[in-house]
Amino acid sequence: MQKYIDLYRSTLLNDIIPFWMKNSPDTEAGGYFTCLDRQGKVYDTDKFVWLQCRQVWCFAMLYNQVEQKQEWLDLALHGAKFLEKYGRDKKGNWYFSLDRYGNPLTQPYNIFSDCFAAMGFGQLYKATGNENFRDIAVDTFHAVLKRKGDPKGIYNKSFPQTRPLQGFALPMILCNLVLEMESLLDAGLVQSVIDQGIDTVMNKFYKPEPGVILENITPDGLFSNSFEGRLVNPGHGLEAMWFIMDLAERTSDYKLIRKATDITLELLEYGWDKKYGGIFYFKDVKGFPPQQLEWDQKLWWVHIETLISLLKGYLHTGDERCLAWFEKVHDYTWEHFPDPANGEWFGYLNREGEPLLTLKGGKWKGCFHVPRGLYQCWKTLEKINEKSLVNV
Amino acid sequence: MQKYIDLYRSTLLNDIIPFWMKNSPDTEAGGYFTCLDRQGKVYDTDKFVWLQCRQVWCFAMLYNQVEQKQEWLDLALHGAKFLEKYGRDKKGNWYFSLDRYGNPLTQPYNIFSDCFAAMGFGQLYKATGNENFRDIAVDTFHAVLKRKGDPKGIYNKSFPQTRPLQGFALPMILCNLVLEMESLLDAGLVQSVIDQGIDTVMNKFYKPEPGVILENITPDGLFSNSFEGRLVNPGHGLEAMWFIMDLAERTSDYKLIRKATDITLELLEYGWDKKYGGIFYFKDVKGFPPQQLEWDQKLWWVHIETLISLLKGYLHTGDERCLAWFEKVHDYTWEHFPDPANGEWFGYLNREGEPLLTLKGGKWKGCFHVPRGLYQCWKTLEKINEKSLVNV
Repeated sequence: MQKYIDLYRSTLLNDIIPFWMKNSPDTEAGGYFTCLDRQGKVYDTDKFVWLQCRQVWCFAMLYNQVEQKQEWLDLALHGAKFLEKYGRDKKGNWYFSLDRYGNPLTQPYNIFSDCFAAMGFGQLYKATGNENFRDIAVDTFHAVLKRKGDPKGIYNKSFPQTRPLQGFALPMILCNLVLEMESLLDAGLVQSVIDQGIDTVMNKFYKPEPGVILENITPDGLFSNSFEGRLVNPGHGLEAMWFIMDLAERTSDYKLIRKATDITLELLEYGWDKKYGGIFYFKDVKGFPPQQLEWDQKLWWVHIETLISLLKGYLHTGDERCLAWFEKVHDYTWEHFPDPANGEWFGYLNREGEPLLTLKGGKWKGCFHVPRGLYQCWKTLEKINEKSLVNV
Repeated sequence: MQKYIDLYRSTLLNDIIPFWMKNSPDTEAGGYFTCLDRQGKVYDTDKFVWLQCRQVWCFAMLYNQVEQKQEWLDLALHGAKFLEKYGRDKKGNWYFSLDRYGNPLTQPYNIFSDCFAAMGFGQLYKATGNENFRDIAVDTFHAVLKRKGDPKGIYNKSFPQTRPLQGFALPMILCNLVLEMESLLDAGLVQSVIDQGIDTVMNKFYKPEPGVILENITPDGLFSNSFEGRLVNPGHGLEAMWFIMDLAERTSDYKLIRKATDITLELLEYGWDKKYGGIFYFKDVKGFPPQQLEWDQKLWWVHIETLISLLKGYLHTGDERCLAWFEKVHDYTWEHFPDPANGEWFGYLNREGEPLLTLKGGKWKGCFHVPRGLYQCWKTLEKINEKSLVNV
């Protein structure tokens, strides 16, 4: 166990965090560069708002949870300053992307920017006590709830009513976000978001037969036999399971933890590539060809998020299958994703496990899943270790 | 030469066309199924308007060009009837997709549906003399020209003015569409669309240094150092070159044919995968990581369109490099894409050349590129053959 603890902690603190501290700050225009090549060199200067927000969150979280290092707080504040100035349109909605100097490039056509803005500024409020940050976080959280029913608004290309669907991403993110922001929100609101989140994820999107979490369901929670309705993103479901375990731990709901652990194992069995190892990015639940040409690729976040769920499942249930799967996914992950020559992790592997793109950051990969995952695994491993020492 | 002629003709008439005639008609709800699995079985019933239009075009073209078979005309009319009834919104814009019964699913958020509607109904007018089809084609063509400057309209997610870009797809399609519809349009309009099309493709999107056709350029025709601006889709450029050759042939502009032939060879050199063979789907012109996770895949349409350009280049210039490349691309194509066990071609191969998806049709692959390509190659090979017999 100690070997694992050391690996996850030291990779976080001595490899990942220094990589982003060194390569990502834009000291001239503010904010962070996230498009970093294999060596960490900036290859594009566009700023994707959700990745900016996630990096603010990451450094504020490290400051709050690991050590009150001034340089970590300074880097979080550096991103927040840029976001505060350029991140929102006149209505307070967060843009999807900005150019290097903060000019808006892509409209607020979805609300994932907003979710991560609330998360980032909420964590930064905890680090600083600055009420302005709290207000941004809380206002944004309320805006997300308000836009929840029609997240794409005028940018929605679907014709109304022919085939209305609800997506998994937002309810899943809310399960995590509400816990992140609990201390900033009204207790009644927190409870209702949690209750609804758990119900939506576990009773609506999770389908016991055939044992998967669907990406899109009808407004009534039913299966839609369409490309969108048949889509399974195993990594999404696997990530959601540790959000659910965290919510269940809050009220010591062992039954819910047990269920989330079982679903973790079930999804992993379903998503695992038996030929080449690793977890597929997308599958069609009926086994038909998915629309996503990238369906067979192996993505960094899918694997690190799965490791968290397996460790949390093991911590709370002691189910040895979690440990066995953890070792298998751990071995695959550490054999394929880290880039020992240049630091940090590759994000995209082909089915066979070779790097498909050698970037360390881009439009979707930033300073978030790897550091959060390493931190979560490190801390969960420590708890597992303490528990086993007590039992001895 | 005769061996090639036989192969392209007989594959078109004895494999591809029977496959679609047998599997795609929706005799209950009208229109065509395009989501066909490896065996030709329908796995999804959604109807993508541009693929419906392309299939109307295909069967009408066969009727007009190959043989006046009633069953071909009937199948074209079968699709046209469905499209006429359900394809357009109240303003006359063509939806992107419909459900099986013609209910709109996706709004007219781009104008590619419209381009192929004009093409399909124009070809069908030539087959039938039905003026209603001519009116649909001509009205749609004018609507495309009207929407050209802002094709996505209200569905555009880009913030205005920060980084305005023009895309290659539309000018490229217009180069082909205007020739398809020449007899239906005012001669002055045809000339101005052709002049502008050739200028846009050859002088704006084609960049002699480094010898590629870019997917997106600034409104002034300049390079944009951004993800969109750096994007190269070699197949798009390669396809456009035979459109240009056809336009050049119309006025016996040998210089233009020569230039289009040179660009074909240049793009192929640039896009060819020296390790595994085949033509890459996307590249970043600066060699940076592209955003497209499917960048290294080998797509059916890229290869068949390239074969057309190589043969037309060889026909008009006699450049032996065209023939050498034709043989190389032909061998790759015929070794990897056809599915002898079930007929038709695979659409999507991974970098190594293995089928990534075994579908014969879906959201993007329908009854279009393979039959059009086989027809174009067959006819061009016949002309090459005649020419060489004359020279002998």
